[in-house]
Amino acid sequence: MRVRHKPWAQDKLNENPKWVIQDPASLKGNWQSVYDQEKPLHIEIGTGKGQFIMGMAQAYPDINFIGIELQASILVEALDKCLENPLENVRFIHFNAQDLTDIFAEGDVDVIYLNFSDPWPKKRHEKRRLTSRSFLDGYKHILTDHGHIELKTDNQGLFEYSLESFSVNAFHLKHISLDLHNSGDLTLVKTEYEEKFSSKGHRIYRCEAWLP
Amino acid sequence: MRVRHKPWAQDKLNENPKWVIQDPASLKGNWQSVYDQEKPLHIEIGTGKGQFIMGMAQAYPDINFIGIELQASILVEALDKCLENPLENVRFIHFNAQDLTDIFAEGDVDVIYLNFSDPWPKKRHEKRRLTSRSFLDGYKHILTDHGHIELKTDNQGLFEYSLESFSVNAFHLKHISLDLHNSGDLTLVKTEYEEKFSSKGHRIYRCEAWLP
Repeated sequence: MRVRHKPWAQDKLNENPKWVIQDPASLKGNWQSVYDQEKPLHIEIGTGKGQFIMGMAQAYPDINFIGIELQASILVEALDKCLENPLENVRFIHFNAQDLTDIFAEGDVDVIYLNFSDPWPKKRHEKRRLTSRSFLDGYKHILTDHGHIELKTDNQGLFEYSLESFSVNAFHLKHISLDLHNSGDLTLVKTEYEEKFSSKGHRIYRCEAWLP
Repeated sequence: MRVRHKPWAQDKLNENPKWVIQDPASLKGNWQSVYDQEKPLHIEIGTGKGQFIMGMAQAYPDINFIGIELQASILVEALDKCLENPLENVRFIHFNAQDLTDIFAEGDVDVIYLNFSDPWPKKRHEKRRLTSRSFLDGYKHILTDHGHIELKTDNQGLFEYSLESFSVNAFHLKHISLDLHNSGDLTLVKTEYEEKFSSKGHRIYRCEAWLP
């Protein structure tokens, strides 16, 4: 996601340590201590402007959520949503998802959401795709037994790649939809991209990848 | 595939034992004896009117092919193509694919083609789909080590189901295309259905499922 650079973004993230976790590595294996109640932990990688994670946190009060985003200038918009409508079961981390195993211990996470991730279509950028082998190895490590990943995208190439990568790396595919918004199987909470692309008539692809 | 019933079809199949194998169970483990040369063996399940298998046999003389079809009235049309243009590397079997392990031994088959199979969309007919668990168990048994299945369909539901079924049953997915005829990755040999549906603008879905 390209956004205008906001030089003040990092400061704003730092000034809100309740919502934007400042030293996530210190919470490895101990994430439940952040919330007022122990609940299943769901994380979104590339949380963007936060519409999905905030909608999910509102819709599912019995789950704790973390939105992870690499770009400070985008994450401040998610933080703004949270400051307007504070929800005790959501937090954010300004972090590079390549290093997830530095901040989550084995089995810390129940569900991982990958929504409209950057497709990195060039073959030489394959390793940057959030469903490439090294990312999947990280997810396997931090997920609970029988934990799973939920992926949505409008990008055909990324979806084809991800299905292959999941299956070759021993995930079991479930609930595949090749046209989510025409399948009668609508999701409750949509991302910004999902609303935009679906309204343009693009197909939305979806799948779950489960640890066997 | 619905076709006009041809009461003479079975007789015609019986009268051409060179091309339509009459006692396939007797060849279990010994299929190479049917052909003039030992070559990799590829089979198509639901070979229909034979356009695909005849086209493949012509395009790939270094492979031996078998087209398997349940309905005699359809298989005679494939036989007609073969009588017009006899190819030494193709044979047909009039047979129910539920019982594949009766006619093929472990490792007899290198590649299985499933082209535009009946989608059996009703949940109570799931077991009839050619990618349901019991069929996949049969394919695993008769395929060589690292053998694979190639599936093409225009049916979204069957494709979603098949991807899940392959992955849950330990096949590795490769070469997925969610829009084969717009991907620049065209197949050399098309089926009758493929020509018909693609010309109507339907998406053709394709994948390979490999034994790990």
